[in-house]
Amino acid sequence: MVASSLGERRIIDIILESLDVMPSMPVSFGDDVSAVEIDDERLAILKTDMLVGETDVPSGMSYRQAARKSVVMNISDMAAKGVKPIAILSSIGLPRGMGEEDVREIGLGLNDGAREYGAYIIGGDTNEAPDLVISCSVLGFCRREEFIGRDGARPGDILAVTGLFGKTSSGLKILMENLKAPDDIRDVLVKSVLLPEARLAEGLALASSGAATSSIDSSDGLAWSLYELSRMSGVGFIIDYVPVAPEAIRFAEANSLDPEELALYGGEEYELIVTIKPDLWDAAERAVGEAGSSLIRIGRVISERKILLRRAERLEPIEARGWEHFRR
Amino acid sequence: MVASSLGERRIIDIILESLDVMPSMPVSFGDDVSAVEIDDERLAILKTDMLVGETDVPSGMSYRQAARKSVVMNISDMAAKGVKPIAILSSIGLPRGMGEEDVREIGLGLNDGAREYGAYIIGGDTNEAPDLVISCSVLGFCRREEFIGRDGARPGDILAVTGLFGKTSSGLKILMENLKAPDDIRDVLVKSVLLPEARLAEGLALASSGAATSSIDSSDGLAWSLYELSRMSGVGFIIDYVPVAPEAIRFAEANSLDPEELALYGGEEYELIVTIKPDLWDAAERAVGEAGSSLIRIGRVISERKILLRRAERLEPIEARGWEHFRR
Repeated sequence: MVASSLGERRIIDIILESLDVMPSMPVSFGDDVSAVEIDDERLAILKTDMLVGETDVPSGMSYRQAARKSVVMNISDMAAKGVKPIAILSSIGLPRGMGEEDVREIGLGLNDGAREYGAYIIGGDTNEAPDLVISCSVLGFCRREEFIGRDGARPGDILAVTGLFGKTSSGLKILMENLKAPDDIRDVLVKSVLLPEARLAEGLALASSGAATSSIDSSDGLAWSLYELSRMSGVGFIIDYVPVAPEAIRFAEANSLDPEELALYGGEEYELIVTIKPDLWDAAERAVGEAGSSLIRIGRVISERKILLRRAERLEPIEARGWEHFRR
Repeated sequence: MVASSLGERRIIDIILESLDVMPSMPVSFGDDVSAVEIDDERLAILKTDMLVGETDVPSGMSYRQAARKSVVMNISDMAAKGVKPIAILSSIGLPRGMGEEDVREIGLGLNDGAREYGAYIIGGDTNEAPDLVISCSVLGFCRREEFIGRDGARPGDILAVTGLFGKTSSGLKILMENLKAPDDIRDVLVKSVLLPEARLAEGLALASSGAATSSIDSSDGLAWSLYELSRMSGVGFIIDYVPVAPEAIRFAEANSLDPEELALYGGEEYELIVTIKPDLWDAAERAVGEAGSSLIRIGRVISERKILLRRAERLEPIEARGWEHFRR
C-alpha cells in the first residue's frame, strides 16, 4: 500500500486510466489476481506483489522470514481465489553490501514459502536496489467455473471468515512499539507477524465445494477488505459481531486498547473473507473443516451498499479505514 | 545485474543452491525465461525482470520511457525464446512525493510497452519504495517444440545476430558522461537508450522457421551473452567479426574510443543472438527478413568451449567481461 499524499486508490485509478483493457479479460482489474484464458475450460492465474524492506519488514523479522513472507502474501491471494499455486518467480533487489549469508537466507526463505504450499521457485532475477525489494509472481491454473471472484456476493449469502482477527496488529505493536503482552500469548502474536500463513487448503476446499460466491484475502485489514468486496460485488453486509481472536482480546486488555480496532483495522492478516450460498453452508463448513480450519459465520450480505455492525439494538456503520504500512 | 562485492553470478548461485528444483522443469534455471507445462504440447512461459531507478534509468529518460523500458526488457526475453507475450503484471514501487502526472506517465509507459508488442497490462500492485522500482512479469504460451532454449547450440551451427551493436553504449556515454556525438547520429544513439525495441517479430519468425538451435537476448552485452550461450550449450564460438553499428564506429572515432569495445561490452542492447542449423540458414534469413530485419551471420559454433575472434591470421579470445550498470 502506498502512503503518499495521492493515496493508493487514486494511484491505482490513474494507472488504470492509462491502460488499454484486454478484450474479454476473464478477471477484472481490482480482484486479488489476474487471469488469461488458456482454452474454453481453463484459466492461467497470475499474481504479483512486492515486498519492500522499509514498509513490509518489521524489526525482528529475519531475511529468511521476509523472503518467506514475500511468497506467502502472494499465495494468500491465490488461496482466496481457490487456485493452487504451481510456480513462482522472484525478482529481487538487494542493497549493496549484503553478505553471502544474507543472500542464502533469502534463497531459503523463498523456498520455504513455496514448498510449504506445494509450489516451486522456477526463476527470477537479481538487481541492486537501495532497499531490500522482493517481487514475487505466482502462476497457477484453474477451471473457469471454480474461480472465486470478488464480484459474486449476492444478497442473502452468508458472510464468513476462515479465522479470528487482531493477532497480527497486536504482534506488530509488540515488535514496532514495544508494547507488552502476557507471557503465554506473546509468541503466538509475534509469530503471526513473522511467520504468516496463507489459507490455501481452505481456499481450495471452498472452490471445490462450489459454495462460495465471492472471496477476498484480508491482507489490507478486515474492514478495508469488506469494503472492497462490497464495492466489487455491489452489495453490503450486516456484521453480527467482529471476530476477534482471544489472544488479541487479552493483548488489548493488557494495553488498554480496543480489541475490535485491532481486529478491524489491522493488516497483513491472511485470512479469507467469503460469502456462501445459504443452501450450501453445510458443505462449505465441512470443506473448510476437512482442510483443518473452521468457517466462522459473521454476518450476511444485503443489497444496500453499507457495512453495518450489529450493536445491541442498533446497526452502526464500520469505518472504511484501511491499514497503513508501519514505518521504522 | 547486481554490482555488490559478491557479484551477480555468485548471488544467483547461492540462491539456486537454496532452492528445491521442480521435477521435470521444462526450461532450466539460467535461461532467459521460465516455464510450466500446461499439457503435453504446450508450455506457459514466464519472465520477470526488475527496473530500479538508480541503476536502470539514465539521466534524460522520462518516467514514461522508464516504464516502457521495464516492459520492453521483459518482452525481449520472450522474443529470444520465440514466445508471443500475452499479458503483463507490473509491481510498482513509488517514492513518496511522486505527483499525479508522474504516476500517469508511468501508466502510459507501461501501456506503450505492452501494446507495441500486442500484449496488455492485466494487473499488478503499487507500493511505497525509496526509489522507483518496476517489476514486470510477462506471460505467454508456446508449443513445446517451438521453444528456443539457450542450450541447443551444436558444433557447425551458424552464429548470427538480428542487428548491429554499440549504439546503446554510445548513447549511454552521451547521456551519462556528456560525451559528444556528430549531430546527425546523436538522436539515433540516444533513442536506442531511451526507446529500446525488442526483436519480437524476429524471434517469433525464427521459432516458426524451426531453424534456430539456441537463442539469447543480448541485454547483458554481446560478449557476456555469448559466454552464457556457450556455458548453457556446452560449446564455443569462432567469431569472424564484431558486428559494430556504423553510428557506433563514428561515435568512437569522434571520442577516440574503441568501437569493438562499445559493441562487445555495452549492455541493454536488445538484439537476439542465435545459432542456426546450416541447412536451414536460408529459411532463417528469409523469416527474419520478412519480420523486417536482417539476420547477420557473424561466426560459427565449435565444440571447444572458447570464444575466439578472428584477427587477420590469428584467433584471439574475447574477454568474458559483463556489462556493469551505470551509476548516477
